[in-house]
Amino acid sequence: MRRSIVNDPEDLVPEALEGLMLSHPLMLDLHEEHRFITRRRPATDKVGLVSGGGSGHEPLHAGFVGTGMLDVAVAGAVFASPTALQVLEATKAADAGRGVVQIVKNYTGDVLNFRIAGEISGDDAVETEMVLVDDDLATDTGVADGPGRRGTAATVIVEKLCGAAAEAGASLQEVAAIGRRAAGRARTMSLALSAGTHPGDSEPQFTLEDDEVELGVGIHGERGRDRVPFRDADGLTELLLEPLRAELALHRGDEVLAIVNGLGGTYPLELNVVARSLHHHLADAGVSIARSLVGSFVTSLDMHGISITLMPLDDEQARLWDAPVRTPALTW
Amino acid sequence: MRRSIVNDPEDLVPEALEGLMLSHPLMLDLHEEHRFITRRRPATDKVGLVSGGGSGHEPLHAGFVGTGMLDVAVAGAVFASPTALQVLEATKAADAGRGVVQIVKNYTGDVLNFRIAGEISGDDAVETEMVLVDDDLATDTGVADGPGRRGTAATVIVEKLCGAAAEAGASLQEVAAIGRRAAGRARTMSLALSAGTHPGDSEPQFTLEDDEVELGVGIHGERGRDRVPFRDADGLTELLLEPLRAELALHRGDEVLAIVNGLGGTYPLELNVVARSLHHHLADAGVSIARSLVGSFVTSLDMHGISITLMPLDDEQARLWDAPVRTPALTW
Repeated sequence: MRRSIVNDPEDLVPEALEGLMLSHPLMLDLHEEHRFITRRRPATDKVGLVSGGGSGHEPLHAGFVGTGMLDVAVAGAVFASPTALQVLEATKAADAGRGVVQIVKNYTGDVLNFRIAGEISGDDAVETEMVLVDDDLATDTGVADGPGRRGTAATVIVEKLCGAAAEAGASLQEVAAIGRRAAGRARTMSLALSAGTHPGDSEPQFTLEDDEVELGVGIHGERGRDRVPFRDADGLTELLLEPLRAELALHRGDEVLAIVNGLGGTYPLELNVVARSLHHHLADAGVSIARSLVGSFVTSLDMHGISITLMPLDDEQARLWDAPVRTPALTW
Repeated sequence: MRRSIVNDPEDLVPEALEGLMLSHPLMLDLHEEHRFITRRRPATDKVGLVSGGGSGHEPLHAGFVGTGMLDVAVAGAVFASPTALQVLEATKAADAGRGVVQIVKNYTGDVLNFRIAGEISGDDAVETEMVLVDDDLATDTGVADGPGRRGTAATVIVEKLCGAAAEAGASLQEVAAIGRRAAGRARTMSLALSAGTHPGDSEPQFTLEDDEVELGVGIHGERGRDRVPFRDADGLTELLLEPLRAELALHRGDEVLAIVNGLGGTYPLELNVVARSLHHHLADAGVSIARSLVGSFVTSLDMHGISITLMPLDDEQARLWDAPVRTPALTW
C-alpha cells in the first residue's frame, strides 16, 4: 500500500497551490477562492493564455505559469475538472485586453466547463478561442462522433508554442492557430507498469500481473487498449514508437520534437534509458530529434510508466520552442 | 514488487548517461570510457568543479553540469563510488589551468577515491581542493573519529555556490572556502514512507509497517535513527524541522535557504504541501525562507520520502545563489 504525505485530502489541492506559490514568490500569485495561479506581474498588451484541469498531473498546469508560457492555470480536485465558475474567473484574470486562448485537454468535463466559461466571459467583453489538445493515439478510435482522443503530454508543446507566440505579440487568432496546428501534429503513446494511488487511498487504481504492461494507459489511470508482455527498455520504447511512427508517417530526413515523459513514479535513470533508446530507434529510421524534453511533466500521481510524444517540427515551431521561457517547471 | 524500465541492469548507468547527453546535445558531452559528463564547451580560465558519486541519486550529479555549476560529473554504479581512476580522469578533465575543486559527499568510498585522484592528479600539475559535504543531521553522532555525517541534499547548495564563484573568477582557495562554509552551515533531515528498489530487483531495500515512518533515512536506503508513528504532512514536516531548528539555532529574524527534496517516489502535490507547511512553521518562529528549491534533486531511486535542508543565508551566499545557472536540472 502507498501512504500519502498529505493533511486532510480535501485540502490537498489548495494547500499544494499555496506551497507552489510560496516557493515562487517573485513569479506566482494564488487566487485562493477560485484556485488558480497567475503570474505575479500580469502581462500587459498580449493575448492571454489560460489552461487547467484536474490535479494530480503536476507540474502540469500551474508549473507552466510564467513568462513565455501560461498566464493563468486553474486547478480542479484530483482528476476532476475545475468548475465553469473557476474557469470563468481564471479566463477573465488571463485577459489583458487582447483576448484569451484557452488550452484544454480533451476530456468531457474540461471541455464543457471551459466552453461555458468562454461563452459567459464574452458577456464581460473577453474574447476567447479554445485550443483542444487531443494527442493520445491510444484513444484514436476513428469514430467521428465519439469522445475523440484524450489530451496528454502534447499539452506542454501547445502551451510552450502558444506562450512564445503570445509573448511575441501575435493576435488571438494567430496564437490559437499555432496551438491548433501543434495539437494536430503531435501524438502520444503511454504505458504503465503500475498504476497511481489517489491521495488518501491505500490501493492503486488498478493492478497488473508481473509479466504485464498496460499499453495505451491514460493519465487518470484509464485502462489501456492492450495488455502486453513485459520487456526491456528498448522493447518498451519500440512499443510506444511504432504506432507513433506509423500515424505520423515519419520519413528519412524528418525532424521531430520529442517528449519522454515520466508518469510520476519513473526515476530519471529509467527516463534517460528510454531517451537513449528513442534516439537510436529514430536515428535508425533516419529521423532526428531536433528538440526534446526528458522528465516528468504530465503525470498521473505516482504511476510508474512513460509516455512518448512526437511532433514533426518546422522552422516556425522550432523558433517558438526555442524562445525564452521562465516558469517553475520549464526555464530556458 | 517493482519492475524497472531498463535493459541489462549492468548497462544502466552508461545507457542513462548517454541518454542524458543525447537529450542535451548543445550542453553536455559524455566520456564513455570513464563514465563522466562534461560541458559540451569546456570553460576556460576558471577554477574547475568536479563532483560525482554513486548513481541512483539523479538528477545529482550529472544534471548539474553546465554554466554556473559543475564542469564535470563522474558516475559510479548504482549506490557505488566511481573508481579512483574514473575520478582522476574526471578531475583532469575539469582543469582549465586554475585548479579543480572536488565536491564530495561524505561516504567512505567516495572520499577515498576522490582523495587518491586528487593526490595523483598533482603529478599532472593539477592542483585540487576537496570540499566535503556532510549535512545529514541524523548521522551526527558527535563521535570525533567516527565516519561523520553523511552528505545529502546540501550538495546542491555547495555545487551552486561554488559554481557561481568559479564562474565569477574566484581562485581555487576562494571557491573551496565558499563550499566549505556552505557545507558547514547547511543541515538536512530525511524521512521515508517506503524504500527504493534497485534496478533489476523486485523488492525494496526495506519495508515498514503501515503506521511507521523511517526518520533519518539515508539516500542509499540506509536505515534511519528512529521509527516513528505515521502522521500527516504538517506533522511529518515538523518531525524534520525541529532537529534542524535546534541544530542551526535559528532565531526570529533569520533568513534561510530551504530545499524541500523528494527522494524519488514523492509526487509534486506532496512536495508542495510540505513546502507550504515549512513556510508556515518557520514563519511562526519568525524565520523567513529567503530562497528555496522544491523538487526531486537528490533522490534514492524511487524511495517515497522527503528531506528538508536548511542553511542560514548571508548576502554573499544569496548573491551566489541568484547568479545565472544553466544545467539540465537547474536553470535560472
